[in-house]
Amino acid sequence: MSHVTILGTGNMGQAIANVVTKGGNSVELFNSSDVAKPITGDIVILAVLYPSIAKVLEERADQLAGKIVVDITNPLNFETFDSLTVPADGSAAAEIAAKLPQSRVLKAFNTNFAATLHNGTVGTEPTTVLIAGDDTDAKALLAGIVSAGGLKAIDAGSLKRARELEATAFLQVTLAAGEKVGWTGGFAVIA
Amino acid sequence: MSHVTILGTGNMGQAIANVVTKGGNSVELFNSSDVAKPITGDIVILAVLYPSIAKVLEERADQLAGKIVVDITNPLNFETFDSLTVPADGSAAAEIAAKLPQSRVLKAFNTNFAATLHNGTVGTEPTTVLIAGDDTDAKALLAGIVSAGGLKAIDAGSLKRARELEATAFLQVTLAAGEKVGWTGGFAVIA
Repeated sequence: MSHVTILGTGNMGQAIANVVTKGGNSVELFNSSDVAKPITGDIVILAVLYPSIAKVLEERADQLAGKIVVDITNPLNFETFDSLTVPADGSAAAEIAAKLPQSRVLKAFNTNFAATLHNGTVGTEPTTVLIAGDDTDAKALLAGIVSAGGLKAIDAGSLKRARELEATAFLQVTLAAGEKVGWTGGFAVIA
Repeated sequence: MSHVTILGTGNMGQAIANVVTKGGNSVELFNSSDVAKPITGDIVILAVLYPSIAKVLEERADQLAGKIVVDITNPLNFETFDSLTVPADGSAAAEIAAKLPQSRVLKAFNTNFAATLHNGTVGTEPTTVLIAGDDTDAKALLAGIVSAGGLKAIDAGSLKRARELEATAFLQVTLAAGEKVGWTGGFAVIA
């Protein structure tokens, strides 16, 4: 059994907590007022909005050493809705990995709308979690938790692919915001 | 009725030609030996691989003035399979638009595997063509041709979104090349 800490109690944090517990794994779910509580999970999911990541890392960097850290953020420019806020040749995940050299950083869940994690479906297709990272064991562990929770998981390659995962999610968000797809739909991954 | 010129007789050129004629629109399909034949279509689809685009534009730029030009390329680095070959803050479509100031340039079909255009499905979901561009009328005309041909079409925003369309397609290709999805599958767009 894995023990997972989720930092952030918003839609995504709750939806991921639900997936984890559904698979028989345990969760502690912390919000911003729980900053004094120590992290006890082996896997830590940063389920906060991108602008809050810097603060979380400042508060928790020491505790994240030795852990698997999962970045789910989409660094959108919410004012213009026309670009990402990270450098074009980088990603939020790469920035986080650079700040956490003692952690194994994964990118996952960022291409999943919260409702598709709750429902287990994108429309009528099974929800697939794309996982990128440089540590194969860490990816396999997270994939196992996702699969146990009733979703599909796919290894999407090295952490460098976070750039494309963030671009894909950005595109998907613009389609949903423009009412071209619903928040229960979007991109389904078809084997 | 629209008349469409397709430059390139590979899998994608043939699949798109099939969609166009299925919808009752007409096609002329040119390969590289047809360079002397004048373009007669109002819409011109550049269905060649990205490395051949520069040559096509050199040969045809004058004839493309006043036309709707559709870029379907994915500028992958086929040696490393680990990046795109266009600048991180740009896109193949942006490069083509810069070289064709007299044309209305659209990005489309680059997120569709050829088999999904032929089959009309991604797995069992209807195939959706994502279309980006700065000219609303041009996008609507292409969307009409796609819809008449039995596929779904979605306006994916301004030509700036070509960057995300190319990143999404790159991710999809890496998943297919890694046998995580099939070439008849990939990303289905679920409303």
